[in-house]
Amino acid sequence: METKITVLEKPKLKKPILIEGLPGIGNVGRLAAGYLVNELKMKKFAELHSPHFLPLVIISDESVAQMLKCEFYYHRGKRDIVLLTGDTQSILPEGHYDVCEKIINFAKSMGCQEIITLGGFAEGQQVEEPRVIGAVSDKKLLKKYDKLGIDFGKEHTIGTIVGASGLLIGLGKNVGLDGLCLMGETVGLPLITDPKASDRVLQILVKILGIKLDLSKLEKTIKEMEEKIKQTDDIHKNMMQNIPKKDEQVRYIG
Amino acid sequence: METKITVLEKPKLKKPILIEGLPGIGNVGRLAAGYLVNELKMKKFAELHSPHFLPLVIISDESVAQMLKCEFYYHRGKRDIVLLTGDTQSILPEGHYDVCEKIINFAKSMGCQEIITLGGFAEGQQVEEPRVIGAVSDKKLLKKYDKLGIDFGKEHTIGTIVGASGLLIGLGKNVGLDGLCLMGETVGLPLITDPKASDRVLQILVKILGIKLDLSKLEKTIKEMEEKIKQTDDIHKNMMQNIPKKDEQVRYIG
Amino acid sequence: METKITVLEKPKLKKPILIEGLPGIGNVGRLAAGYLVNELKMKKFAELHSPHFLPLVIISDESVAQMLKCEFYYHRGKRDIVLLTGDTQSILPEGHYDVCEKIINFAKSMGCQEIITLGGFAEGQQVEEPRVIGAVSDKKLLKKYDKLGIDFGKEHTIGTIVGASGLLIGLGKNVGLDGLCLMGETVGLPLITDPKASDRVLQILVKILGIKLDLSKLEKTIKEMEEKIKQTDDIHKNMMQNIPKKDEQVRYIG
Amino acid sequence: METKITVLEKPKLKKPILIEGLPGIGNVGRLAAGYLVNELKMKKFAELHSPHFLPLVIISDESVAQMLKCEFYYHRGKRDIVLLTGDTQSILPEGHYDVCEKIINFAKSMGCQEIITLGGFAEGQQVEEPRVIGAVSDKKLLKKYDKLGIDFGKEHTIGTIVGASGLLIGLGKNVGLDGLCLMGETVGLPLITDPKASDRVLQILVKILGIKLDLSKLEKTIKEMEEKIKQTDDIHKNMMQNIPKKDEQVRYIG
Repeated sequence: METKITVLEKPKLKKPILIEGLPGIGNVGRLAAGYLVNELKMKKFAELHSPHFLPLVIISDESVAQMLKCEFYYHRGKRDIVLLTGDTQSILPEGHYDVCEKIINFAKSMGCQEIITLGGFAEGQQVEEPRVIGAVSDKKLLKKYDKLGIDFGKEHTIGTIVGASGLLIGLGKNVGLDGLCLMGETVGLPLITDPKASDRVLQILVKILGIKLDLSKLEKTIKEMEEKIKQTDDIHKNMMQNIPKKDEQVRYIG
Repeated sequence: METKITVLEKPKLKKPILIEGLPGIGNVGRLAAGYLVNELKMKKFAELHSPHFLPLVIISDESVAQMLKCEFYYHRGKRDIVLLTGDTQSILPEGHYDVCEKIINFAKSMGCQEIITLGGFAEGQQVEEPRVIGAVSDKKLLKKYDKLGIDFGKEHTIGTIVGASGLLIGLGKNVGLDGLCLMGETVGLPLITDPKASDRVLQILVKILGIKLDLSKLEKTIKEMEEKIKQTDDIHKNMMQNIPKKDEQVRYIG
Repeated sequence: METKITVLEKPKLKKPILIEGLPGIGNVGRLAAGYLVNELKMKKFAELHSPHFLPLVIISDESVAQMLKCEFYYHRGKRDIVLLTGDTQSILPEGHYDVCEKIINFAKSMGCQEIITLGGFAEGQQVEEPRVIGAVSDKKLLKKYDKLGIDFGKEHTIGTIVGASGLLIGLGKNVGLDGLCLMGETVGLPLITDPKASDRVLQILVKILGIKLDLSKLEKTIKEMEEKIKQTDDIHKNMMQNIPKKDEQVRYIG
Repeated sequence: METKITVLEKPKLKKPILIEGLPGIGNVGRLAAGYLVNELKMKKFAELHSPHFLPLVIISDESVAQMLKCEFYYHRGKRDIVLLTGDTQSILPEGHYDVCEKIINFAKSMGCQEIITLGGFAEGQQVEEPRVIGAVSDKKLLKKYDKLGIDFGKEHTIGTIVGASGLLIGLGKNVGLDGLCLMGETVGLPLITDPKASDRVLQILVKILGIKLDLSKLEKTIKEMEEKIKQTDDIHKNMMQNIPKKDEQVRYIG
């Protein structure tokens, strides 16, 4: 089996901007993405499945089995949007490259020239007034995002961005996509969903997209998303802690 | 080497239903599958080998070496059946997707339109009267299996189904197969073969298949299967506990 | 990079028998194979390299770097022989299948119809008078090897044979090769080279091959092989104990 | 995604010598390579990206995201040089073989017939006057490098060379490249950048290359490289210690 994107509908979009919000630290990106999908009534048009995800199905409240997947949604507006969210990221280092490359190729085929990834930045302690920390794919973009209140390493530097939020920027840059990563400050591990950090990220994102969004419903939406997020959080926690070691070196008799 | 299905015979079957019972929690699925093979005198017609299995051979009482394998059996009746059982599942996460996809493709090529997977549900404690918990590939199937005594999440929900019993439902759904997973409640880890849970799963399965099965011999059959099951149980326990770590990150001097 | 066999010479051989003795428990197989190479003045004609070996080179006393490899030797006699020995086995479970399949295909292309694998059987305690325990690819072979003093599970059973000595029998069987595995009883872990167990295996092997071999030099040869064996033993010990974990699940910020 | 070398410029070079200095013990090789790039004002002409690297991007002081990469530089002189340095090596054993094979093929396509790899040799304790220990791809090369003060195992032997510095010599040898590995003695783990060991390696390297190099600036250059080296050191330390286990064997219910 290969990482595969199944297209359910082929919307015609004008140079859409790709926005990514997958599970991660504080679920900041995923929560923000989910809120956008709800509030903009975005429509799903593609799904991504991958052997790099955990080998399991999720069972819904109605006892229906669902493969782990990422989902692509679209929205037509002043700026057309392709949004990527989902249940999980790759569980293998090499899988991250494979999945992210497939996503970037798909975005290119949709006409995307720009990508914004959303995530959390683990501070290791409670943050009263979370800032939004940014990174770009090219120095020239710093001006473009100058007046939005993003902290581009002024106050503290970030060494690396691990996973899809980082790799999509890096791989996108290699094929000519402008990239911006927005990270809301949050506690980090253990995994605690952090709506406040999502709120800050969304406040900046709506300015960039030039859309109006009623952020007052964020708390309510989070409650609704809570059950599903808890379920996949549990998967990720399990993945990292409880399960026995995989592919082990085997003592050989021969 | 690739995951490969070797066909020993090409039986013509009418829209057979695929039934899976591979090793897992409580060996509930494997035991139920083994009993069906014995009682219905099912005939083996294909074998699956995979590099995703442990790199070893099993030695029989007669000192004959056997590769780890999964086996396909068939039965002609009111409903034609293709049954999948075997020594093991994949030991690698990615391997699960590969092996299960090959199984689903093979089932499609045999004309299967429906799949029932059998397994155990780990309760973490002794269960006096084990229920059979179910999950389906599509909501519309809930009605079809309504009156059989399957607990579709009424009393407690199940978050995920890991391994072949889950993935076969998920991957099958993607290519149009209706799927049902039947899980008998059992203790879970450590691995203890649980005939009672198998019995409950079989009682529901025979109703679905419309066959008669003398379940009184289940205990006796289990005794007969015990030695072989113990052997592969030991493999799985070893796999999870005793063996040194595999492919390790190597310190480099250079 | 792929697992690759480089042929240095193409000897014409009459239905040669493949004999395998790679590193493993007690180095029983490797030692026996090395002694055969020396005493029969066998000639190397092919090398196997694989990405499934550890990513390192061995440095000789003369400061010359050598890739880890397996080596094929041949001998013409009453029975032509192809002998496989080397520095290492695969370090990854899946790698074992890949490497062993390539070996079996190569053996087939050389005209081999029979394979004998040599190894140690870990008893977990000192063995005063080590027996040689055997396993075959097919029940019919038990008669053929009846009168040689091999213990075919009479006194205690062996559950599995892990690694090349097992897989070569299993994979060979799938393509029509008759297989015999000879295992000399030895302590097992920790890795202690066991010449006595090798001696017992060789005593049976020479009867099967119908060759004369001066086993009195075995002790002396072992001393000569000691340095090199220690070197690769160290590699395998390191591989199993000291080195940090490999390909790890990475926490993602995004 | 595959390991891929992107060529930015196609310089014509006369039988260039390939020099490798990637991150490793004491950063000896990387530091020496970086100093050569600076002092000889070498020009970058190619980049290597690989899914075998950690799935992350590095963030520069200016908040610009960079993929992990290796870089090829060239220099025209008495001896034309192709120099390989970079952020990282493969994190997976199998990845090392893949990355190194791609590098060797690229070097061959550039006309390289010789390769020198630079690294540190972990002594496990402080070394007052670090020697440079050498290994070659072929015995005949020992004479060639006879009078340069390289210790070819006279005083203590080295068992193995792990990672790119070793594998490039081994894989290069297989396609006809003469190889020399120069290793400066250093403490080893924990990772401490060791300019003194780099200095000793460079002193020998400049003699081989017949170039003049002002080594007095080494200390200053190290300060300049310090920040970037620290960043990727942190990555490697994290990689080896803090992060949760990757691709794990999953308990299956089914």
